[in-house]
Amino acid sequence: MRIVVLAGGIGGARFLRGLKRAVPDADITVIGNTGDDIHLFGLKVCPDLDTVMYTLGGGINEEQGWGRTDESFHVKEELAAYGVGPEWFGLGDRDFATHIVRTQMLGAGFPLSAVTEALCDRWQPGVRLIPMSDDRVETHVAVTLPGADGGPGERKAVHFQEYWVRLRASVPAEAVVPVGAEHAKPAPGVLEAVAEADVILFPPSNPVVSVGTILAVPGIREAIADAGVPVVGLSPIVGDAPVRGMADKVLAAVGVEATAAAVAEHYGSGLLDGWLVDTVDAGSVERVEAAGIRCRAVPLMMTDVDAAARMAQEALALAEEVRSA
Amino acid sequence: MRIVVLAGGIGGARFLRGLKRAVPDADITVIGNTGDDIHLFGLKVCPDLDTVMYTLGGGINEEQGWGRTDESFHVKEELAAYGVGPEWFGLGDRDFATHIVRTQMLGAGFPLSAVTEALCDRWQPGVRLIPMSDDRVETHVAVTLPGADGGPGERKAVHFQEYWVRLRASVPAEAVVPVGAEHAKPAPGVLEAVAEADVILFPPSNPVVSVGTILAVPGIREAIADAGVPVVGLSPIVGDAPVRGMADKVLAAVGVEATAAAVAEHYGSGLLDGWLVDTVDAGSVERVEAAGIRCRAVPLMMTDVDAAARMAQEALALAEEVRSA
Repeated sequence: MRIVVLAGGIGGARFLRGLKRAVPDADITVIGNTGDDIHLFGLKVCPDLDTVMYTLGGGINEEQGWGRTDESFHVKEELAAYGVGPEWFGLGDRDFATHIVRTQMLGAGFPLSAVTEALCDRWQPGVRLIPMSDDRVETHVAVTLPGADGGPGERKAVHFQEYWVRLRASVPAEAVVPVGAEHAKPAPGVLEAVAEADVILFPPSNPVVSVGTILAVPGIREAIADAGVPVVGLSPIVGDAPVRGMADKVLAAVGVEATAAAVAEHYGSGLLDGWLVDTVDAGSVERVEAAGIRCRAVPLMMTDVDAAARMAQEALALAEEVRSA
Repeated sequence: MRIVVLAGGIGGARFLRGLKRAVPDADITVIGNTGDDIHLFGLKVCPDLDTVMYTLGGGINEEQGWGRTDESFHVKEELAAYGVGPEWFGLGDRDFATHIVRTQMLGAGFPLSAVTEALCDRWQPGVRLIPMSDDRVETHVAVTLPGADGGPGERKAVHFQEYWVRLRASVPAEAVVPVGAEHAKPAPGVLEAVAEADVILFPPSNPVVSVGTILAVPGIREAIADAGVPVVGLSPIVGDAPVRGMADKVLAAVGVEATAAAVAEHYGSGLLDGWLVDTVDAGSVERVEAAGIRCRAVPLMMTDVDAAARMAQEALALAEEVRSA
């Protein structure tokens, strides 16, 4: 069975670990979000790709869900001593090595997809991990920062990481723009994987800045809609709140309420065939089905790998239901 | 008193620490060798500049004489896990930060001299440290590597660091070439410092690959010879062997025997006014003076900062002797 998964960071990575346990023999291709990539200290950092790679490769810091296990922060300490920031982005020493290798390979002319493949040679994630695009796409968020002394606020666009990590989504996201997406091409292998897939899954990743950014690369949304295979998603919203992170903040920016049903409607029946909501949201099944999307309510809390595996099984079962409908 | 010092790595740095103790109020400009600079992992590494900066700024690993104190090697470990080398060059995590900052600033368009000044803002070495040139100069060494199974050897040019650190000077240096030196310009401030100096010192640094490389930048040797102030050097050879490192190996490449007297003659009376040899080499004073260079035999082992300070005092005393002669 060939499965294509559109993945963001932590939620996507943990779902993928469950999926691998659920169907160990499946041929899994992951199309990774690169909209949250950022250049720091002259290095190219790809947080979502690395979270998937480290999680599936056994190198992740389990507790925080990102970054490396057994990590130290000497490089960062020294950069701060030089007065070189930003200090708000937590790059550890082991993690730095990944960005150094990536930056060196990109500088030598390799596209990000080839670099990602080379990094995965070490980590052996057990999936094929492809960045959504080899072209640079950077998600920016329009915000109004509070003015000094109650004066007028300053409207500006900040990098998604600055909004997410530095500001901790403490101000409303007025707009979310995947800068460069409209001119980006899907990376080699992306459209092929979609065309050859037996099922396409949207894990409980952020529907705006993770899955949404991948879908913003021209050709990917269309390929998924036209693939003629079941497309099933899992709600990242449980009981009207994001399971992780601050998805509600960026959903507001695109005018979508933070509910499991509203996210399904946001994707729409033109893209999505099936949708899993958590059991606490069983009341929204009817609304989702009214939108033309087959819906089931099952436990959606990834408390451990087994729980994630059961979610993956439910998603694949719903895909079979869609297929045979 | 304005003092200009041409410095390599460990020997130069330790001498400078002594010089600062000997004449705390002196205005010291250090012209640093950059011929041993190397690009590693896409980063610009300047071993000699950093050794001076760390030593005078209190960050040096005292025992080994280079690299940072309280150092860890997680980045390097991870690079090795990615199969990315070279593994023979010992870059620690704290040291990496320096190279990351440097590389980022160079990439932003700052010349190496401005970058070095910015790095020194943190370290406050108490001297003005200027790279010999903002242009890239890389010392290469011609060697013949042993052939496989007793077959013919392979003649090739290797980077100085590869000769020094990887091969540990285990094969003869057939030639030493400061690649790029002939087109390099002295960095801003170098010629001005030489012109305004009251005394110019050559510490017991390597006469070929440290001081020799600095002198190979067109204009520097001439400026020193024409400065009209005492130029005094300290022998890096004591008792017919280098105090540190493997200076004898590269001296052979330029046809100079590894003796205190031969090194003085190699610099020549056109450049050098005074020369200090160790007391064990007192027998060579006559030969050096016969070459037109005023010579004294004093203890030249930098066993601690006080010993280095006494050496610096002896050098300055010899300079005064030259001046009043």
